[in-house]
Amino acid sequence: MKKKDTQSEIIRIGTEMIARQGYNVTGIDAILKEAGVPKGSFYHYFKSKEEFGIAVIDHFAERFEQRLELFLNNKEMAPLGRIRDLLESGLTHVTQNQCTKGCLIGNLGQELADLNERFRARLDEIFGVWRERFAACLAEAQNRGELSCAIDPTITAGFILSGWEGAILRAKVMKSPQPMRDFVDVLFSVVLLPK
Amino acid sequence: MKKKDTQSEIIRIGTEMIARQGYNVTGIDAILKEAGVPKGSFYHYFKSKEEFGIAVIDHFAERFEQRLELFLNNKEMAPLGRIRDLLESGLTHVTQNQCTKGCLIGNLGQELADLNERFRARLDEIFGVWRERFAACLAEAQNRGELSCAIDPTITAGFILSGWEGAILRAKVMKSPQPMRDFVDVLFSVVLLPK
Repeated sequence: MKKKDTQSEIIRIGTEMIARQGYNVTGIDAILKEAGVPKGSFYHYFKSKEEFGIAVIDHFAERFEQRLELFLNNKEMAPLGRIRDLLESGLTHVTQNQCTKGCLIGNLGQELADLNERFRARLDEIFGVWRERFAACLAEAQNRGELSCAIDPTITAGFILSGWEGAILRAKVMKSPQPMRDFVDVLFSVVLLPK
Repeated sequence: MKKKDTQSEIIRIGTEMIARQGYNVTGIDAILKEAGVPKGSFYHYFKSKEEFGIAVIDHFAERFEQRLELFLNNKEMAPLGRIRDLLESGLTHVTQNQCTKGCLIGNLGQELADLNERFRARLDEIFGVWRERFAACLAEAQNRGELSCAIDPTITAGFILSGWEGAILRAKVMKSPQPMRDFVDVLFSVVLLPK
């Protein structure tokens, strides 16, 4: 395999392992073993475990950005319908995974925000991008008269992001997608209304 | 110090350390050192690290139960005002801690729900108790005509718990209490209305 392919494979496997068990617990040797890469060659691919961790976060954020683009920029749907489709797709995904893993960005935020400033800043940036994506969709819904103009798009976007991250966490602890189901239902029947 | 006092002190210090850095990273030796207890005497106080972890969770849950009792059973306040006071007090607490630590139950749920079934079940139970507490308060608000009867108290209680846990997580990542402020404001201006 080329260096770049091996690097990608280590990131792919590392993402899986970190999502399942956290960053600190995940040892470099275990990742290399799973990736079938010789022990000791890690530093050929990454400068440090921290660099590797940042690469895992960036990889996840890029993939997630594609999903946000796919759902939230789908001009064939009304803006609120796009948000709903995105959340429903997340719900299906978590259900398929038997409510394990949760959200990688939420998990690492929980684990690392107080321990590593570089990770914290990167995770904060990603949450900020997600919030802006939701806010733009809410503003578009307001412009089209689908959503009350009494609400603030950015604050409400943050409210959605908080609720969604918390619902994913509760689903993981409960081993049931019910908290995510309830969140979507309350969000669209009580919060995101035309007037 | 008596055995029981030393045990309490280890739990108190362990709670602090686990809240700051997580369960897996927190070593027994580091806790004992911080508590001024001789290295190697841990198993005199706890059967295993797991038993100690459960004791930490139970200790936190008991203290939190006292806060829930104090706020949510305060019959001098209207039910929705009690929920608001509880959340405002949590916001003040997190602000005082410079948005570090987060919620111990949320943190451990994130870290351990997929790794240890005993921890997961205990954390799930605690979230369930909290949700029921909120639900009882919401039902009381409905009986007193303060809250729309169109909403389901248990589902809405879960919605509040999800949103609050997510807002605490975002505050920790952002190092700002703003997500918690926004959550409370949206909750009481959009979700918990009389009609």
